[in-house]
Amino acid sequence: MSSRKRESTGFLLKQRAFLKLYLITNIENGRWYGLQLLDEMRKEFQPFGFEPQHSEIYRALHDLLEDGILTRGKIKKGDSKYQEVAVYSIKDKEKAKTYKKMVKADLDRSSQILRKALEDNYS
Amino acid sequence: MSSRKRESTGFLLKQRAFLKLYLITNIENGRWYGLQLLDEMRKEFQPFGFEPQHSEIYRALHDLLEDGILTRGKIKKGDSKYQEVAVYSIKDKEKAKTYKKMVKADLDRSSQILRKALEDNYS
Repeated sequence: MSSRKRESTGFLLKQRAFLKLYLITNIENGRWYGLQLLDEMRKEFQPFGFEPQHSEIYRALHDLLEDGILTRGKIKKGDSKYQEVAVYSIKDKEKAKTYKKMVKADLDRSSQILRKALEDNYS
Repeated sequence: MSSRKRESTGFLLKQRAFLKLYLITNIENGRWYGLQLLDEMRKEFQPFGFEPQHSEIYRALHDLLEDGILTRGKIKKGDSKYQEVAVYSIKDKEKAKTYKKMVKADLDRSSQILRKALEDNYS
């Protein structure tokens, strides 16, 4: 899995993996508009001083399409006859589950590294 | 503080800041040989799948010298009359303290982001 290598350089979890995780969960829960996802994520992480860039979120979406985890469709927007919007849904539930499991391990590992740093340097 | 900007892009704590933190603490505790520090850190983080590169540790040391937090001296190695090794010591205790405080805030913030991700995606 080449994308796994790119996302794990051994230090903390990469932003890309983090965004992909949230995208999968949000899409599993039925919130699947590109722009809607983006705005929600930005709002949610603002109190933590983290404001993911639009371009980063779209790269994460693109990765998930490439990985075969998501699929993209088009629907008509509201009453408009002509305006279409992209919607995303889970294409392969097993793959999605496996990816989330991998990120969980990296989240746990990263938390341990941070906890160790707090103990080693501030006690 | 230009180095602060570089080290905080809003997502998790950067490796550079993490290494600088450990270097300061180790040097405060009197362990100040470049190579010795390096080997200790690599050994200590191996169980966490994190193996900092020599080049990264030296860049962190260089940063701390540039920041005026550390100073470098030379001492003769063992019985050898000619072989000298670089040793590092704290140059400015206040600056070191301020830097550690800043990294502490970023460690706490990063831990919160990881905790939130665990709650939001795995419960």
